[in-house]
Amino acid sequence: MNTFFTVGPAQIHPAYEAIYMEALRNNVGSISHRSAAFRAIYKHTDQELKQLLNIPQDYAIFFAGSATEIWERIILNTVKEHSFHFVNGDFAKKFYDFAKKLGRKPQAQIVDNGATFDFDKVTIPADVELICTTQNETSNGTALSKQQLATLKQRYPNALLCTDIVSSVPLQDVDFTNIDMAFFSVQKAMAMPAGLGVWIVAPSVLQRFKQLQHDNVQVGAHHTLDAYFKNYENWETPSTPNVMAIYCLGKIAALYNQIGVQQLREQALAKKAYLKSELKNIAYLSPFLQGSNESLTVLVYNTTSSVSHIVDQLKEQGIIIGKGYGSLKDSQIRIANFPALNMNDCERLVAALKACS
Amino acid sequence: MNTFFTVGPAQIHPAYEAIYMEALRNNVGSISHRSAAFRAIYKHTDQELKQLLNIPQDYAIFFAGSATEIWERIILNTVKEHSFHFVNGDFAKKFYDFAKKLGRKPQAQIVDNGATFDFDKVTIPADVELICTTQNETSNGTALSKQQLATLKQRYPNALLCTDIVSSVPLQDVDFTNIDMAFFSVQKAMAMPAGLGVWIVAPSVLQRFKQLQHDNVQVGAHHTLDAYFKNYENWETPSTPNVMAIYCLGKIAALYNQIGVQQLREQALAKKAYLKSELKNIAYLSPFLQGSNESLTVLVYNTTSSVSHIVDQLKEQGIIIGKGYGSLKDSQIRIANFPALNMNDCERLVAALKACS
Repeated sequence: MNTFFTVGPAQIHPAYEAIYMEALRNNVGSISHRSAAFRAIYKHTDQELKQLLNIPQDYAIFFAGSATEIWERIILNTVKEHSFHFVNGDFAKKFYDFAKKLGRKPQAQIVDNGATFDFDKVTIPADVELICTTQNETSNGTALSKQQLATLKQRYPNALLCTDIVSSVPLQDVDFTNIDMAFFSVQKAMAMPAGLGVWIVAPSVLQRFKQLQHDNVQVGAHHTLDAYFKNYENWETPSTPNVMAIYCLGKIAALYNQIGVQQLREQALAKKAYLKSELKNIAYLSPFLQGSNESLTVLVYNTTSSVSHIVDQLKEQGIIIGKGYGSLKDSQIRIANFPALNMNDCERLVAALKACS
Repeated sequence: MNTFFTVGPAQIHPAYEAIYMEALRNNVGSISHRSAAFRAIYKHTDQELKQLLNIPQDYAIFFAGSATEIWERIILNTVKEHSFHFVNGDFAKKFYDFAKKLGRKPQAQIVDNGATFDFDKVTIPADVELICTTQNETSNGTALSKQQLATLKQRYPNALLCTDIVSSVPLQDVDFTNIDMAFFSVQKAMAMPAGLGVWIVAPSVLQRFKQLQHDNVQVGAHHTLDAYFKNYENWETPSTPNVMAIYCLGKIAALYNQIGVQQLREQALAKKAYLKSELKNIAYLSPFLQGSNESLTVLVYNTTSSVSHIVDQLKEQGIIIGKGYGSLKDSQIRIANFPALNMNDCERLVAALKACS
C-alpha cells in the first residue's frame, strides 16, 4: 500500500478499516434513517464532533454529499442577493463562482495566491448578508487565524460569517462563537474515504433562512435548511444519507477525542516543524509561504525541479504527494500534515525528497 | 446479524465486504478523482452497468450523492417551465413537489395508491418539456411496464421521458432506447450501503440543457450537466465523488453480469412466486396489488393485524421487514425481493410470518 501525503483524498486512518467492518457487521449499512439505531449514530457523531471542535451545543450539524454541495446549499439557503467572498485561492474562487451561477450578486476581494487580508481595514457593503472566508485554502496552503475571523465578525456582526475548514479540521483551532457556518469533507484530516460533507450551522442561520422563505427566495428543493432543522430535532435527516460514513466519522472523532485535540495539534506542529527544518536543506524546494498565514495542515513548496519528476520518483517508493493546484501545478508541490501520518512517515518522505535527483 | 427484507436501505450483498476491503487495501479511498486509477474505476463501472442494464453506449452515467439529489438536478437541468408528473405514490409525489419548490410550473396526473395509468388515453399539454414517471414506486409496489413507457414515448416524442428505477434496477427490464433519463440509488437491489445516486442520461438531454443555458435558466451551480458531460469525456467527475461506492458498484454489477441479468430476473420471479403462494395462506395478509402493475421487487401486503406487532415479532427472529410508507404505515407491510436474499431467506421469512400470532 502507498502512503498518501496528498491533501485530500488523503491517507486513510489506520483504525478506519476495523471501524467500517464493525459497522457492516452491525448492520449499519442496512438500517433505516428513521430507526432508533440511526438516531443513536447521528447523535453520537454530533456529540463527538462538538467535543472535538468545541462547537456550542445549540449549533446543528448536517450531512450532505460533499463540501462542494454545501457551497451551493449555503448560498441558496442564506443569501437573497449579496454575499461577499474573500478570495485567496482557487477553492474560495469556486465558492464565489457558485454564488454567481445561482443568480445572486456576490462581491469579492480577490488577492494573489499566498496573500492575505487586512480585516481591520477592509470595507464590506452594509447590505452584505453572508461573508465567505476560507480558513484553510487547500489549493495553496494559506490560512486565516482565529483572531482574523474574530475581527471580521466584530466589525460586521449583522452579516453571517462562514468559513471553509475542509482541510484544517480538526487541527486548526476555530472559535465557533464567532462563526455562523463552517463546513468540511471527511477525506482530509478526518482520514476517511470521500462521500460525506459536514455542515456546521449556528441558530442564527435558521432565522436568516426563514427571512428568505418569507421573501419567496428560491432556496432549492433538496437539503434545504427547514428540512435539515426539522429532522435534526429528532436526530434524523431529510433523506437517506451516507449512514456508514456518518457512523465512521463519529468513531474517528471519538478516537481523536481520546487522544485529545490539543495533543493532535501538538503532534501536527511537531511534524510541521520537522518537515520545514528538513526541507529547508533541499536545494530544489523553497517554502511558498512564510509566517502567520502559513497553514498547519497543507504545506506548499515552490520547486525549481520538474514537479512531475518529483511526484513520479516518490511514487516509485510508494509515497504519493500532491502537485500544486490549477495554475500552480507545474511549479509547486503540496504536502498534507494530517493525523493519519506519523513522524516515521514524515521521515520516509524527507528521505525520499532528499534522494530525488 | 439480521436479515433485511426492507426495500432500502436493504440487505447488503454477501460479496460486498470483501469487495470493499480489497478496494481499501488498493488505496481506492485515497486516490484523486483526476488520477488514471480513478478513470479506470469510472470506466469499469460505466461499462458493467451498461452491460447489466442494456444501456446504449452513447448514454452517459453520472454520480451524485443520492437519488433525491438527482430529482433536483433533473428539474434544474432539463426543465425551463413545464414538467409533467405521473403520480401514483409518495415518491412520485415528492419529485413533483421538488419541481414546484424549484419554481417551475409542473403539472401532474395523480391517482390513488396502487392505481395505474392508461397511457394510451392520457393527454399531456404540448409545452411539456419533461415527463416524469416512476417505473417502480417504492412506497407502494406499483410498477410500470416497458410497454407502458414505450407508449408514452411514442405518443410524446418531443418531451424528455424520465423514469425512477430506484428500487427495481437491475431486475426490471427497461428499454433505454425509449427513455431519456433514469436514476437509482445503490442501497436497494444493488445491495450496497447508501451514499451514491446514479443518473443515466441520453445524448438528447445535453441538447435540452444547452437550450436552457441559452435561455438563461437558473440551472444550479453543483452537478450541472455541462460539468458532468465535460468531465465524463475523460472519465472524471466535477468534484470528488464517493469513489469507494463507484468502485464497489462496478464490482457488484460485474458479479451480476457473471450470473447474467436474465438469471437474476428468473430467480426474482421464482422467489416472488414462492412468497405470493405461501403468503396467500396467511389469514392476516392480503396482497395490495394484483396483476400487471404489481412490482417484481417491492411486495406489498395489507394486514388486518397490527403492523408494529408483525414487525416486532419478526425482529425477534432477526428478520427485518418494512412497514407501509407514509399514510400506509399502519395498514401495510413491504417485503423486498432483491438479489442479496435467496430462497432460503424467503423460506425463513415465510416461516416467521406464519408463526406470527
